[in-house]
Amino acid sequence: MNAAFDPERFRREGRAVVDWLADYWATLADRPVSLPVEPGAVRRQLPAAAPETPEPLAAVLADLDRVILPALTHWQHPGFFAYFPASTAPPSILGELLAAGLGVQGMLWSTSPACTELETHVLDWLADLLGLPARLTSRGPGGGVILDSASSGVLVALLAARERATAGLTNGAGMAATPAPLTVYASADAHSCVEKALGIAGLGRETLRRIAVAADGGLDAAALSDALAADAAAGCRPCLVVATVGTTARGGIDPVSAIAAAAARHGAWVHVDAAWAGTAALCPEWRADLVAGTDAIDSWGTNPHKWLQVNFDCHCLWLADRAPVVRALSVKPEYLRNAATESGAVIDYSDWQVPLGRRFRALKLWLTLRLTGAEALRGRIRDHVRWAGWFAERVAADDRLVLLCPPSLALVCFAAAGGDAATANLLERINATGRVLMSQARVAGRTAIRLAVGSPTTRREHVEGAWDTVVAGLSRMPDGAPDRHG
Amino acid sequence: MNAAFDPERFRREGRAVVDWLADYWATLADRPVSLPVEPGAVRRQLPAAAPETPEPLAAVLADLDRVILPALTHWQHPGFFAYFPASTAPPSILGELLAAGLGVQGMLWSTSPACTELETHVLDWLADLLGLPARLTSRGPGGGVILDSASSGVLVALLAARERATAGLTNGAGMAATPAPLTVYASADAHSCVEKALGIAGLGRETLRRIAVAADGGLDAAALSDALAADAAAGCRPCLVVATVGTTARGGIDPVSAIAAAAARHGAWVHVDAAWAGTAALCPEWRADLVAGTDAIDSWGTNPHKWLQVNFDCHCLWLADRAPVVRALSVKPEYLRNAATESGAVIDYSDWQVPLGRRFRALKLWLTLRLTGAEALRGRIRDHVRWAGWFAERVAADDRLVLLCPPSLALVCFAAAGGDAATANLLERINATGRVLMSQARVAGRTAIRLAVGSPTTRREHVEGAWDTVVAGLSRMPDGAPDRHG
Repeated sequence: MNAAFDPERFRREGRAVVDWLADYWATLADRPVSLPVEPGAVRRQLPAAAPETPEPLAAVLADLDRVILPALTHWQHPGFFAYFPASTAPPSILGELLAAGLGVQGMLWSTSPACTELETHVLDWLADLLGLPARLTSRGPGGGVILDSASSGVLVALLAARERATAGLTNGAGMAATPAPLTVYASADAHSCVEKALGIAGLGRETLRRIAVAADGGLDAAALSDALAADAAAGCRPCLVVATVGTTARGGIDPVSAIAAAAARHGAWVHVDAAWAGTAALCPEWRADLVAGTDAIDSWGTNPHKWLQVNFDCHCLWLADRAPVVRALSVKPEYLRNAATESGAVIDYSDWQVPLGRRFRALKLWLTLRLTGAEALRGRIRDHVRWAGWFAERVAADDRLVLLCPPSLALVCFAAAGGDAATANLLERINATGRVLMSQARVAGRTAIRLAVGSPTTRREHVEGAWDTVVAGLSRMPDGAPDRHG
Repeated sequence: MNAAFDPERFRREGRAVVDWLADYWATLADRPVSLPVEPGAVRRQLPAAAPETPEPLAAVLADLDRVILPALTHWQHPGFFAYFPASTAPPSILGELLAAGLGVQGMLWSTSPACTELETHVLDWLADLLGLPARLTSRGPGGGVILDSASSGVLVALLAARERATAGLTNGAGMAATPAPLTVYASADAHSCVEKALGIAGLGRETLRRIAVAADGGLDAAALSDALAADAAAGCRPCLVVATVGTTARGGIDPVSAIAAAAARHGAWVHVDAAWAGTAALCPEWRADLVAGTDAIDSWGTNPHKWLQVNFDCHCLWLADRAPVVRALSVKPEYLRNAATESGAVIDYSDWQVPLGRRFRALKLWLTLRLTGAEALRGRIRDHVRWAGWFAERVAADDRLVLLCPPSLALVCFAAAGGDAATANLLERINATGRVLMSQARVAGRTAIRLAVGSPTTRREHVEGAWDTVVAGLSRMPDGAPDRHG
């Protein structure tokens, strides 16, 4: 019928890809979670030039098996415990497939109204499920948006904060025109994206005040108050405080209420980065800790692409007031003008983000919530937390290991009793098995091994297997502590 | 087997979604390309809360049919001629499905080596197909990367330019510390994302020097030289020139060689934004105009998600030297450190972009090139350009219309002879038919109707139908010019 689209061929090839993926997932547990790869090893197996004439799908799928899969880290593997999860599941995969197949652009409400309205609506659904206050939903002057990542969420919050602090001056005249130096605050354990955003937005990475972390892993609110007061006294204009709910290294939770109170005294924007831990607010038993203080903040973000089994990219950012963000990011040349925008009755999400274009990402969140249901999503999170707790108990009971802090939800940080070199060595042994993958961080001044439960294929037995792998690694430690488990 | 993944269910539901999409594409031509929608009309049909228990896929597909489709603009419709195309096709849809299904993270080479290596490799393939010089490929110190959008490409180029111009000062100490004001240049017809990037990066939107456009729609290089010299004489530091190859309004092409020569005298970074038109460099007959001057530029970007039938998001950015970008954007906390990064032998693409995370976007470009082949991709572009040329001839031959400029590749800009109000009225009549969708812009001081051919389902007969729609619109114009065609 036409050059680019043959529905029957798409039906056939679509099924082949679905089957290939079903087989991949069905056999995932039989693969190593990752294998050593030499730099350049993948490229050496690929032809030097693109083909002039079409190749069959079967050839591509064969190359996926032969060249690509052996050189991937399998993030959905049951033994994947590294970083934070970047989880997905069939509802989200199907949602992404629908978005790709519809191929609509949601840059403006008018360029595909359902794309914008479903996003606003599903973000309200999710805010309600998480127990976020109504002031962060579209019922007020704010609402939610899907961005690609928590990094972008922090950047958008910073740009809005910068403009609010300078009454729109910097967007037009630039940072060099600020009457007073702008300052930004986050805990010493905040994610590196805060520093990155400061560089991007022209405030400079050195502007970041890294506030001390208390013993529980949360920002020291008294130290923040002092820093804010000292900067204000020195003629600076405190602009933004980033509070972290679930720090990357150890899952520490900043005291958001106290932070918001301190920030309010200086008119600073408060953004909460709950990228990983935020999802656990689905469960009422943890909600109080995770959404405390949200009645007095300006923005709050979490990543369903981490722990809600929505494939990357899906960062959800909620704003108490959308106006400062729109003022910072809207540009409307002639070719984007339209009656709906001018009416003021609609949201144009390109005004809430760096890129102009946007795909229909709300579909994968919509399908995840509808095909899974909130109850089952809560159940999975509870499983992960329970299994991590079991693992932490094993660590605490073994005198060859040190539990570096109490587990935070589904994250356990531990070390070898022998010190940093022994810990690094143990991590290497664990990961070399290919059965599990863990990652490293610095926690309380020590090298830590991180186990984060969150892969969609992980079951209790895999966490038990992870423990067996740790025990086996210990029993073969070069300093030769005997394996009392064996 | 586990809570989140049942391969047999995925097989079944995946096929249902593939079939639903195949049916959607097969019947796309029978739908209106867009329908009037009232703000809030979609949300009113959705329940107020997410479900607690799972719903069947069939219920979601039914809602797609009932609620979502009637409120979408169908960007892949054969009558879609608005904006620039955001085209897709089965190979890309399948590539996106694979990326979602594999669910790997390519933030670092080490977090999934094949994700990074395939991207570098396929970007070399595409650079070669486009006739870009080897200096922009990974054979030298630069290479290519996939970002979400041309807006992000411009922002990344600006950040690298800013850091190069200030020897890394601004990233650390901020824009307020610049010894001389930084200035940025683009044509008056450059995309709004240049202005947006200047606001984001703290230079300020007012820093943009909008250089006059010559009669052919390209930047006036002499005016640029003068502006650069005047700013330098006034103590400014020219930092970046954005050249546009294919302006949004009319497809104008800036003289990149002359721009690069002028910029070189001041050490300014030259970025080429070839978001839409760049894809046509696949065809040797247009290549000379489209990649001229690329032997002396710093970065060049095009969007396969516009005209190469790779679904959004897929902006390809090539750099002559990756070092300034990495210096501007790299942050490596402990939890991201790894031996491969420290060896310097690998690319960590998170250092080339704002977000940290990234999905396996190279797959959709790889599948598009392999399953389609370069020959067929060229053939489609040639068809689009030929059909647009045919349409432009009809316009030029009709004295009720004005061809505002010669067609640029597959883009035609025209107006009603009666002036701006008549043009706006004609556009409204055309789009109200639901058979086609065109968009508006300002060209040479006049309101223009834009017809951009590029949807994957468009055939010659649809462009002929678009012309019939214009003629019918003219015949019913309120000022009543008789329809000499009817």
